[in-house]
Amino acid sequence: MINITFPDNSVKEYEDGSSPLDIAKSLSNSLAKEVLSATFNGKPWDATRPITEDGTLVFHKWEDEEGKHTFRHSAAHLMAEALEKLYPGTKFGIGPALENGFYYDVELPEGKVITDEDFPAIEKKMLEIARGNHPYERKEVSKAEALEYFNAKGDDYKAELISELEDGTITEYCQDGYTDLCRGPHIPNTGLIKAVKITSIAGAYWRGNENNKMLTRVYGVAFPKQKMLDEYLVLLEEAKKRDHRKIGKDMELFAFSGKVGQGLPLWLPKGTVLRETLTRFLAKIQKKYGYLQVITPHIGQKELYVTSGHYAKYGKDSFQPIHTPNESEEFLLKPMNCPHHCEIYRLKPRSYKDLPLRFAEFGTVYRYEQSGELHGLTRVRSFTQDDAHLFVRPDQIKEEFCKVIDIILYIFKILNFKEYTAQVSLRDPDHKEKYIGTDEHWDMAEKAIIEAANEKGLPTIVETGEAAFYGPKLDFMVKDALGRKWQLGTIQVDYNLPERFGLEYTGADDKKYRPVMIHRAPFGSIERFVAVLIENTAGKFPLWLTPVQGQILPISEKFNEYAYKVAELLNEDDIRVEVDDRNEKIGRKIRDNETKHVPFMLIVGEKEVNEGKVSVRKQGKEDLGAMTIDEFKKFIQGEINKELHPEE
Amino acid sequence: MINITFPDNSVKEYEDGSSPLDIAKSLSNSLAKEVLSATFNGKPWDATRPITEDGTLVFHKWEDEEGKHTFRHSAAHLMAEALEKLYPGTKFGIGPALENGFYYDVELPEGKVITDEDFPAIEKKMLEIARGNHPYERKEVSKAEALEYFNAKGDDYKAELISELEDGTITEYCQDGYTDLCRGPHIPNTGLIKAVKITSIAGAYWRGNENNKMLTRVYGVAFPKQKMLDEYLVLLEEAKKRDHRKIGKDMELFAFSGKVGQGLPLWLPKGTVLRETLTRFLAKIQKKYGYLQVITPHIGQKELYVTSGHYAKYGKDSFQPIHTPNESEEFLLKPMNCPHHCEIYRLKPRSYKDLPLRFAEFGTVYRYEQSGELHGLTRVRSFTQDDAHLFVRPDQIKEEFCKVIDIILYIFKILNFKEYTAQVSLRDPDHKEKYIGTDEHWDMAEKAIIEAANEKGLPTIVETGEAAFYGPKLDFMVKDALGRKWQLGTIQVDYNLPERFGLEYTGADDKKYRPVMIHRAPFGSIERFVAVLIENTAGKFPLWLTPVQGQILPISEKFNEYAYKVAELLNEDDIRVEVDDRNEKIGRKIRDNETKHVPFMLIVGEKEVNEGKVSVRKQGKEDLGAMTIDEFKKFIQGEINKELHPEE
Repeated sequence: MINITFPDNSVKEYEDGSSPLDIAKSLSNSLAKEVLSATFNGKPWDATRPITEDGTLVFHKWEDEEGKHTFRHSAAHLMAEALEKLYPGTKFGIGPALENGFYYDVELPEGKVITDEDFPAIEKKMLEIARGNHPYERKEVSKAEALEYFNAKGDDYKAELISELEDGTITEYCQDGYTDLCRGPHIPNTGLIKAVKITSIAGAYWRGNENNKMLTRVYGVAFPKQKMLDEYLVLLEEAKKRDHRKIGKDMELFAFSGKVGQGLPLWLPKGTVLRETLTRFLAKIQKKYGYLQVITPHIGQKELYVTSGHYAKYGKDSFQPIHTPNESEEFLLKPMNCPHHCEIYRLKPRSYKDLPLRFAEFGTVYRYEQSGELHGLTRVRSFTQDDAHLFVRPDQIKEEFCKVIDIILYIFKILNFKEYTAQVSLRDPDHKEKYIGTDEHWDMAEKAIIEAANEKGLPTIVETGEAAFYGPKLDFMVKDALGRKWQLGTIQVDYNLPERFGLEYTGADDKKYRPVMIHRAPFGSIERFVAVLIENTAGKFPLWLTPVQGQILPISEKFNEYAYKVAELLNEDDIRVEVDDRNEKIGRKIRDNETKHVPFMLIVGEKEVNEGKVSVRKQGKEDLGAMTIDEFKKFIQGEINKELHPEE
Repeated sequence: MINITFPDNSVKEYEDGSSPLDIAKSLSNSLAKEVLSATFNGKPWDATRPITEDGTLVFHKWEDEEGKHTFRHSAAHLMAEALEKLYPGTKFGIGPALENGFYYDVELPEGKVITDEDFPAIEKKMLEIARGNHPYERKEVSKAEALEYFNAKGDDYKAELISELEDGTITEYCQDGYTDLCRGPHIPNTGLIKAVKITSIAGAYWRGNENNKMLTRVYGVAFPKQKMLDEYLVLLEEAKKRDHRKIGKDMELFAFSGKVGQGLPLWLPKGTVLRETLTRFLAKIQKKYGYLQVITPHIGQKELYVTSGHYAKYGKDSFQPIHTPNESEEFLLKPMNCPHHCEIYRLKPRSYKDLPLRFAEFGTVYRYEQSGELHGLTRVRSFTQDDAHLFVRPDQIKEEFCKVIDIILYIFKILNFKEYTAQVSLRDPDHKEKYIGTDEHWDMAEKAIIEAANEKGLPTIVETGEAAFYGPKLDFMVKDALGRKWQLGTIQVDYNLPERFGLEYTGADDKKYRPVMIHRAPFGSIERFVAVLIENTAGKFPLWLTPVQGQILPISEKFNEYAYKVAELLNEDDIRVEVDDRNEKIGRKIRDNETKHVPFMLIVGEKEVNEGKVSVRKQGKEDLGAMTIDEFKKFIQGEINKELHPEE
């Protein structure tokens, strides 16, 4: 008999060789139907794999990340079998689960290609096999056996992978006669897979190395219920519509130029208005919290980054040093603003009374990303951090964290991110040697962060061992309108840079002390934040933020002059309006502007000109009647005020 | 007899061999006393040099740049003679006139050095010689004669210079037995030099090459009247006090860090406020004039600058290309924003109705300067242009120039630059092949610029042959409070980049045309402009611009809390105040703050707390009485409004 301990610490006795599925059945039939895999004594475990010793057991269902992961991985094997059946002679690379689905890299037989048109056939074959309810069977094999099998089959890539494995550690999984090299775990049987969809294909070099052969990467998704697939496809469609790259282009917010370079965004006039409105918004809050704005250059001497450690960190994989006609000089594009801010701190002696000192900068930094990893505004080579570095005394950490949390929560509130979580990352107490800073300081800082998070009522998870080597941190994730998670703001304690730059302050006792540095960025980066905002709002930004707040529509060209006068008056008071002066019928103008994300249409014709008014129409057809220019100004400023001060 | 034509086109007859001085005497004795040199038939001419042919004659007096230049050059010879007398065996390099004085590079005899303490003796010797009224005598010599003389004297540097000259073109000048190799011209005699001052010494490599010997460079100034020297020294003292590097440091506006790198300014919190207030001010005007702000990265692919021609221009002497892990990629720090703006123009088809398109960017650019040439904020390696590129039809050039002139004149007015001149730079009509663009376009643009300058009533000088190869331009010079001239704003037509980038617009006739590009920067660069502002105002910026508008002085620490509450209320309305919360007597606080350039002091004590007021004191002791916070807000906003709208 074996003793199984469950997550609630209850212990039960089972027969030796019971599988997690057997154990689940003993607990409840409905549970057993849902179990996809398990974790036994901390190790991933097939639901059907016998247990032969005492230990802790956790079941995984579709609802858990682990369960989904197993399910998708099994679907990848199912797709591989389908491909083998449809395209005999196909060679297989790797086929992992992804965050949303899975893929398999395959080399199709000579002359074969897969196109979109082949997707239904693959899906059909997969479901056909799935309905056979074939179990996924685990088998421990020797290296020789494994090599023999895959060599015989002509699966060169698998053979290559096996040749690098240690004998005695190799397992295969087999379903319906299809055998794959795999660590597992897998779901009990193919029948659990009720819905599949091949989503796309791409080329991918074997092992990511461009000197290797280009394989075909087939992407798919799979679900335990057809309804889930249907919902997923709707979500996918909606996500496509909200793709910030598409909306950014349609709204003329930003663009890329092949000549300027990949991953280097050009902010177009409307995007610049959006971005500057956003930065002014944050700058205003920060000013209230005692932040001091600074501006520093986008390069620094290599020496600066040797001191900071960034040269060692980013060195070879990043933008390379900039030489000058003077051979002894080398500069680097700055990957971070902190070294510059440390230098500002060092410009004069600081006293304990001067702290906290909060240097803020909307600083554009440059980091090299592989071109394949670039993606719209979320993965770029130049981005602007809403950066600040707080130089504080150790006893001020908690208060400063509280204040930064206040700023971040205010931003989330104004920008309508209602669902968010925070992660506190602490050091691994068993490997304290990996971290810089004294025990006392770490304990103090970790306690301060946890207390701050609790006091501010953050929904928090604590992750031990996830701290950076230089200090503990607090990261924020938001859920967008489609339920997708995005990592945004971060607050990080840093004991490292003050040490490296030899930063000091004089204490009340006239002795010298090291300040603690806190890095923080509520948006993370402006580029990424704007991308998330676009995807969350589908381009329908709040009134205060949207680049064009009103579109003035003259009923005919006769009224263009008046329209421009109105525009001038409004723009003077920072109300952002444009004139649609096209020679089109007003009905057409209204229809065209309904499709844009402009909150107000201001219609002007004979009556409006005579009365010095505009007829105001809210996006979405609500007619607000005629207003004088001053009335409209007050009205729109009131609306903006409501957005920015929701509780008043 | 010879016929002499004067600048007023009058012609007079003189005896063959008459000198300009003879001719001046014939016109008026007082004129003759003032003539220092002349220009005869376009060539520089000594006042005493005989004229033996017909031609045009212009006299130069101290009031002209040419006159001053001759005077200073003659003073350099005088100093050389003094040095030879005081330090026999001194070898002479070159000794030119400068904008404000002159210098001579000398190699002193073995073991001799000159220090500040020797300056009076040199000055004394110079005046002693000067009072001898020795004429400066011009002599044409053969190369052999010249070499023989200087070799015999041991003047190796002069011999080296002569060896590179063509025989038949060599002249020497001699006064009081001191002979120098020189093209001239010189003043009639040493007696005209009434006041001299040795100002400084420095080391300078012979011919600027660090492989050569380091010579001693002796700087001096000289004047025709003692009073002028006295005034100059006062001015120098005042200039030293106004040195933007000193004030920038005292006011904590900007700083440099050896670790970040020379010539890379760090804008400190107060400087950042100043800078951002300035850019917001300009951005607001520009918005009114239809400019569209954009933001572009600080790097671009090398290819971009090959297209623009900047790579060829800045290539070897500038920051070198940035490599990446991908060997086929190369980036450059941007030396100019225009290529990026051309790429934005190219993003979509443009129609004649879209023009003018005005892309503006406060874009930080990077240009390598030799470390010896760096100077505070006026000569840096990173600077931020208040840049804009106007893409216009050829027929729109004049109107756009008028509008830019309006912007520049508005800035000059608000910032109190009352004296300014504009220079129109046209192409050399005799060398049209040096310029890009058609005759028709050049004629049109040059005419447009001249007309615009005239219509706007600019005090203008027109310089033929001074245009850039890519187009004519208009540059602005301002005079500061000390009468020093600074080059600021510029407006330049560019036919080159639209060609290189293949920019187009569709005309009303549906044909494709090239737009004309206009580069313009009213400040020039923000760094340089701030330097000029500091030197012009000695740090006493206008109220609307100054980083700290009010200093709150609590009478004792008891009132600090109230002081901070007042500060918060004012800062919320963008009135920039600080609290002097030091534990000092109020008298001391007032005295300390009088020396800072803060326009208002707000004193708060028991009475003010009880009444919810502040006692307002204007910098310079004017007491304005007690005001409520709202009253003070309105008052200061009114003052700012008066500054920004002077005519209302």
